Amino acid sequence: MSNPFQAPAPKATTTDGVYDDAERALANRNSGTLLETLALDVTPTGAHYLLTHFDTPILDAASHRLRFHGAFETPFELTLDEICALPQVTMPVTLECAGNGRSGVSPRRYSMPWGYEAAGTYEWTGTPLAPLLARAAPRAEAVEITFTGADFGYDSGCGHYFGRSLALEQLEALDVLLVHGMNGLPLLPQHGAPLRIVVPGWYGMASVKWLTDIEAVTQPYQGYQQVQTYRYREHAEDPGRPVTEIRVKSLMVPPGAPDWVSRARLVTAGAVEVQGKAWSGGGREIVKVELGVDGHWQEAELTGRTGPYAWTGWRATWHAEPGAHLLQCRATDASGAQQPLEPPWDHSGFGNNAAHTVEVHVAQR
Amino acid sequence: MSNPFQAPAPKATTTDGVYDDAERALANRNSGTLLETLALDVTPTGAHYLLTHFDTPILDAASHRLRFHGAFETPFELTLDEICALPQVTMPVTLECAGNGRSGVSPRRYSMPWGYEAAGTYEWTGTPLAPLLARAAPRAEAVEITFTGADFGYDSGCGHYFGRSLALEQLEALDVLLVHGMNGLPLLPQHGAPLRIVVPGWYGMASVKWLTDIEAVTQPYQGYQQVQTYRYREHAEDPGRPVTEIRVKSLMVPPGAPDWVSRARLVTAGAVEVQGKAWSGGGREIVKVELGVDGHWQEAELTGRTGPYAWTGWRATWHAEPGAHLLQCRATDASGAQQPLEPPWDHSGFGNNAAHTVEVHVAQR
Repeated sequence: MSNPFQAPAPKATTTDGVYDDAERALANRNSGTLLETLALDVTPTGAHYLLTHFDTPILDAASHRLRFHGAFETPFELTLDEICALPQVTMPVTLECAGNGRSGVSPRRYSMPWGYEAAGTYEWTGTPLAPLLARAAPRAEAVEITFTGADFGYDSGCGHYFGRSLALEQLEALDVLLVHGMNGLPLLPQHGAPLRIVVPGWYGMASVKWLTDIEAVTQPYQGYQQVQTYRYREHAEDPGRPVTEIRVKSLMVPPGAPDWVSRARLVTAGAVEVQGKAWSGGGREIVKVELGVDGHWQEAELTGRTGPYAWTGWRATWHAEPGAHLLQCRATDASGAQQPLEPPWDHSGFGNNAAHTVEVHVAQR
Repeated sequence: MSNPFQAPAPKATTTDGVYDDAERALANRNSGTLLETLALDVTPTGAHYLLTHFDTPILDAASHRLRFHGAFETPFELTLDEICALPQVTMPVTLECAGNGRSGVSPRRYSMPWGYEAAGTYEWTGTPLAPLLARAAPRAEAVEITFTGADFGYDSGCGHYFGRSLALEQLEALDVLLVHGMNGLPLLPQHGAPLRIVVPGWYGMASVKWLTDIEAVTQPYQGYQQVQTYRYREHAEDPGRPVTEIRVKSLMVPPGAPDWVSRARLVTAGAVEVQGKAWSGGGREIVKVELGVDGHWQEAELTGRTGPYAWTGWRATWHAEPGAHLLQCRATDASGAQQPLEPPWDHSGFGNNAAHTVEVHVAQR
């Protein structure tokens, strides 16, 4: 869709650790998961991170229709009631925003300036997508399936409904869920009500919210959110490669008590239990988590996985000595991939899975 | 409580429109209400603003106790089951953070840099506090009742549990609710589970979350959140006066579609329905809302109040002409108080009720 407007151009440059009013407003609007809730296997309703490109549409569940159309042998439409009458699955899935950690990448792309908090785990309820795609039966010439939401807006002057695609062979390897519920409740408006998909193991951009259309296409999809953004790029002119599976990552519950403004952590000397969660994409298991104290690493105990597509708990004991310390955690997954200590470079700040670092001040007991 | 730690000192100065990493992290963590949900009478669960000074405590509802103690004739404790067995009330209450709008006050206090979004309306369920206070029976020498939460942390080097007080004569005029539910659900952890108070008509700091203690005291309460902060001050040394009732305010649903990064709004020329909500503290009714377009004001239609302590809907038709325009809204309450066009000065950025201003770009139809 072309742009009839003179849309404001995004800023080209940023300064490390300095944010302007638009970035501040994005940080206000898009909310991070509360790190202290990482003590729980399932993120409390409403405490899960939220990244919304445009506005949250307020849709009517009763009149909502999901259309399977395009290069299908048997296109059809479904109401929400019809979807709820299909076999139901509930599964915890750890989702993470591809831009999580962007504020740590230098120079920083002018966009939502995430810290560490754009990851969470809800228990999603819905019906598997695969049988519905089989029923619609992609024609022989179909190459991809596109997923389009009801949320419309502009990015760099391009007006579009948020949309993404998955190739047929990608779909075969993914347990995509057509979701209408979360944490035992109907899907909340800001999480995509009345209908969305959840693509386990991939960064969040694939899990299209406010879903209205599933279309089989015979040429690779050229939607803005597929080809213009969500690509790893070395520089602005690099065509790049698509952002897909979540990279291995871990986060800790910041120990002790916080200082209100700086969020620096304050604990008393002695044994401190540190805990958190670790996850990776593509269903890869977490095999190791380490806790670092001022660069010295100890292996943490793994306390179990919340589900095949959800994070793994970990804990370690830190013998805290008075003074200021840097705590870090890093995870390794079954493929051998380990979190780096420094943010990996990406022009757009995607996929920053550097070790979580927390400053802790320890007082004499 | 004294401070055994070398807590980081908050920054003394800020620059207009420029935010550092700590402010960015606060904006990530504390979430604003999604302005597009102002089309609804009740804010969707999880889309309500959230301001948490310290960490969200994860408390066990089954073992939770609320203690009435201090200068009461008959101190007692209550379990959550006992509270739920008392007469129940459900009421929509509009809450707003006292620091809402801080980013618009110059020079800006170094704290949570709210834009416009720290206001929302949930339907709160609980039991009125007054009969319980009558049962506990404050002794003749009692002057205030204090409310203390389970959330502990530091502010400017002072370690404390979040606590607030209300004088006995203030309590007589307030319909304080002891709350365990919201929007038909049990209270969520981040909103104060399992128990909090809601003080209708006052800024949010009075509505203490994670409530553990209600104490009758014989001297004015000197808690940090009562005497060190939440005061209107001309300058840093001004002892100031307490922040109490919410000032008259209105917000609009930003019309049209957004640009992703700048959040500038884009609409097509012609008749545009603009809507929003308006509210004031102390139960004062909204008598007028005006929509301003480039400084020209028209009266909006009031579409009804959600409840005696909740916001009032409004709508107006804007005949949008091509070009860039500044839309504003301002409300007037039954006392005659009207929103100013410029932020009122406060050293800490409290109580900024200046008119909501939205930049809109209009294209030819």
